[in-house]
Amino acid sequence: MKYSNDTVAILGLGLIGGSLARSLRASGFSQRFIGYGHRDKSLRRGVELGVIDEFTLDLDELIERADILVVCAPTLIAADMLRQILPRLGQSARPAIVTDVASVKGNMRDAAIEVMGAMPPQLVLGHPIAGSERSGVDASDPDLFVNHRVILTPEEGNDPAAVEVIRSMWASTGAEVVDMAVDDHDAVLAATSHLPHILAYALVDALAQSSASTDIFRFAAGGFRDFTRIASSDPAMWRDISIANRSALLDSIDSFSAHLDTLRQAVQAGEAEQLFATFSRAKQARDEFAATLAERNRPTE
Amino acid sequence: MKYSNDTVAILGLGLIGGSLARSLRASGFSQRFIGYGHRDKSLRRGVELGVIDEFTLDLDELIERADILVVCAPTLIAADMLRQILPRLGQSARPAIVTDVASVKGNMRDAAIEVMGAMPPQLVLGHPIAGSERSGVDASDPDLFVNHRVILTPEEGNDPAAVEVIRSMWASTGAEVVDMAVDDHDAVLAATSHLPHILAYALVDALAQSSASTDIFRFAAGGFRDFTRIASSDPAMWRDISIANRSALLDSIDSFSAHLDTLRQAVQAGEAEQLFATFSRAKQARDEFAATLAERNRPTE
Repeated sequence: MKYSNDTVAILGLGLIGGSLARSLRASGFSQRFIGYGHRDKSLRRGVELGVIDEFTLDLDELIERADILVVCAPTLIAADMLRQILPRLGQSARPAIVTDVASVKGNMRDAAIEVMGAMPPQLVLGHPIAGSERSGVDASDPDLFVNHRVILTPEEGNDPAAVEVIRSMWASTGAEVVDMAVDDHDAVLAATSHLPHILAYALVDALAQSSASTDIFRFAAGGFRDFTRIASSDPAMWRDISIANRSALLDSIDSFSAHLDTLRQAVQAGEAEQLFATFSRAKQARDEFAATLAERNRPTE
Repeated sequence: MKYSNDTVAILGLGLIGGSLARSLRASGFSQRFIGYGHRDKSLRRGVELGVIDEFTLDLDELIERADILVVCAPTLIAADMLRQILPRLGQSARPAIVTDVASVKGNMRDAAIEVMGAMPPQLVLGHPIAGSERSGVDASDPDLFVNHRVILTPEEGNDPAAVEVIRSMWASTGAEVVDMAVDDHDAVLAATSHLPHILAYALVDALAQSSASTDIFRFAAGGFRDFTRIASSDPAMWRDISIANRSALLDSIDSFSAHLDTLRQAVQAGEAEQLFATFSRAKQARDEFAATLAERNRPTE
């Protein structure tokens, strides 16, 4: 075996990195877990909780000792970390594999190519579609990825053996691992996650700034609460995702705006049949999606 | 007392009308409940369930016998019903009060003025902000309105005594009754309910029609499910609401679109500080709203 998976480094110890370490420890996929970050607060807590065995603030030491480096930092910091890690990997006979969990993949690929001139064979980009309303290492959960999707975006220059190690790693957490092209990943996530966040933020901000905002929030009910839940998400995280996935997000916004404008014209013209047809089509698509999601999340015996 | 409230007529027996009848019977506010509709299926079921005591398909008979007529039909049909009822009310010494539960109030007021030349003194427009994922008389629940808001929109020409009867009626269901102007009601509901439905329908339809729709729905997760839940609402109901509240809805769409366009420009220009400020403002407003809603819905002892 060209690669080892004994020692896993978690770079940025929060909900996702902590949950991954706990899961890999429970499954026996890896034996030793080292935390890394710029500050030691959450790292000390990770050791206290037994999520990691030790930590270091020294990137060179980390790279020397780890078999798999998992970059779990927020999107834009994750790209910066890649720029620091990749040139230091060296050309040892038993090189470390580098992977990540960031929400956007194109900017990670571009950062790698920017510093290395080409896609490094042992950089395997990935994105677990999992989360929680809670955050931080205290919220970490070894079952966080069970029955969730993890998308890997292997590139032409990748070493297939490195991709297989990362695929096995995620499979051991109970996740379903699927492959996608980087650009497809970013387009799909823009449509299903990044655009809805922008819409929710835009709606709540528009209402909050209106002169009737007191009455508006006073009379809003449960449907509004569900619709705007994602506007309570972390503003720094979504600022970074919006910047990292700019191109696909702009395409998604434009496609949505064109559809909204068509609906607006139908409302203005009182086009009852067109409104009914559009709403019916949307309801059918949404009902099918909800049924699929319920089926996927059904506990298996 | 100028008005009596012994006999209540429910015109259109579904979730809302059935729940109101059950609640008024339980509280003793009224003694006799008569259903009315164009078809007898749900009316027969209402008698079976004990929700109503009897029913009729004859509007003249209904008007002769009822003290309070509650129009519970869907939005546009409700306006048509008003046009039929109001000219038949006559000028008896003990006239019936007419009220409704429709989601839009401006088109109801306009329908009344259209047929009567002015706002009839005994027409008290109202809107209970309550619902359920279930529908129909079988889903009716005497506690549906407990701790929910009911908005009354009394007009200049209304008889204050008639308004007080309807206020007492809703208070007896456990609802909190508040007054608003018709146009304010329609603007607030456009912003908090009608616009979000249009946005959810537009988003799901845009994604369903995209070439990547299979992947898009395959990788969508819980946040998307919550955000699009209202796109599973009844298309006929939302077609009618969109038409009935056209003017306020168009204003809401335009205000939202202007905000979305500003955010789009910030994404395109990579304006990190502006994105962070907008997302933070929206998060704060949404968190405050959610806290208020949780407090309002807290069970009281």
